Amino acid sequence: MRRVKLFVATSLDNYIARPDGAVDWLFTDGDYGMSDFFASIDTVLLGRHTHDWMIKHGMPFYRGMKNFVFTHQAGRDTYDGHVEYVPGHAAEFVSDLKQQDGKSIWLCGGAELADELIRAKLVDEVSVAVHPRLLGRGIRLFGTVLPETELKLIEHKAWPNGLVSLTYEVMR
Amino acid sequence: MRRVKLFVATSLDNYIARPDGAVDWLFTDGDYGMSDFFASIDTVLLGRHTHDWMIKHGMPFYRGMKNFVFTHQAGRDTYDGHVEYVPGHAAEFVSDLKQQDGKSIWLCGGAELADELIRAKLVDEVSVAVHPRLLGRGIRLFGTVLPETELKLIEHKAWPNGLVSLTYEVMR
Repeated sequence: MRRVKLFVATSLDNYIARPDGAVDWLFTDGDYGMSDFFASIDTVLLGRHTHDWMIKHGMPFYRGMKNFVFTHQAGRDTYDGHVEYVPGHAAEFVSDLKQQDGKSIWLCGGAELADELIRAKLVDEVSVAVHPRLLGRGIRLFGTVLPETELKLIEHKAWPNGLVSLTYEVMR
Repeated sequence: MRRVKLFVATSLDNYIARPDGAVDWLFTDGDYGMSDFFASIDTVLLGRHTHDWMIKHGMPFYRGMKNFVFTHQAGRDTYDGHVEYVPGHAAEFVSDLKQQDGKSIWLCGGAELADELIRAKLVDEVSVAVHPRLLGRGIRLFGTVLPETELKLIEHKAWPNGLVSLTYEVMR
């Protein structure tokens, strides 16, 4: 079965973005394991807030990947050339997606979607790039009540700039 | 000047305890760097909730150390043989303490006291022992709005059981 991999950057205090969604504090001077990760996936899952933020800031969606955006807003075209809009809750759709053929599936974010899929026990791997910073406020990863979940550390790396990449298998 | 070191265990989702204060999920089968750390300190700072939890669960205070408990409750004896009670806010007291002679000062917790001293920019080092677990709910370290704080990773270690110890210098 295809694996769903949460792969996100956080501050040490567990924020993925400033209150307005800004991620200006992330290291962008290097790859930090992204290309290895990208080689393992062919599908990207995005929440609607993250999608809107990417459009607002002129960020491209991930070419060569299937981009799915989960939205409760009605009236979206189901496909606009780059992304496919999926109405309603994500869990059932992602559960089906995992049964199909393909490479791994990137749970890109944001926080609401990540929490929803962890709650539905659909996430197989959690990878966080912990930035050496307390952001102090913002949008929390794991911001809602979740089921207690045992993890197994499968990879770790500290980069010279103090970024720490931690990858865990979700135990069941 | 003496250094104040926050040294705590967290879950990957940034909790230091269950909602009722319980820490049954912590690894207790090893030392995990505690004795090295203890050798560097002679003073312990505790919040009142942590203090009450320790008494309720029959946990000893730290012998051979000065234990200070910060409390807004009136009527405490200032010294009960094991701990000294400090009324009111912690920042001024800790600021004075740092000027005195002695070894480093352990900011043991809980979360409220840690947040207060970080906000007052009195913390020099942040050390977290990240347990391989999403606790899902509980008492958050860094649970309140804090000033954005740049950190420098100075030590890291992954233990065979998946515990990851990260130590940062607080940059000013």
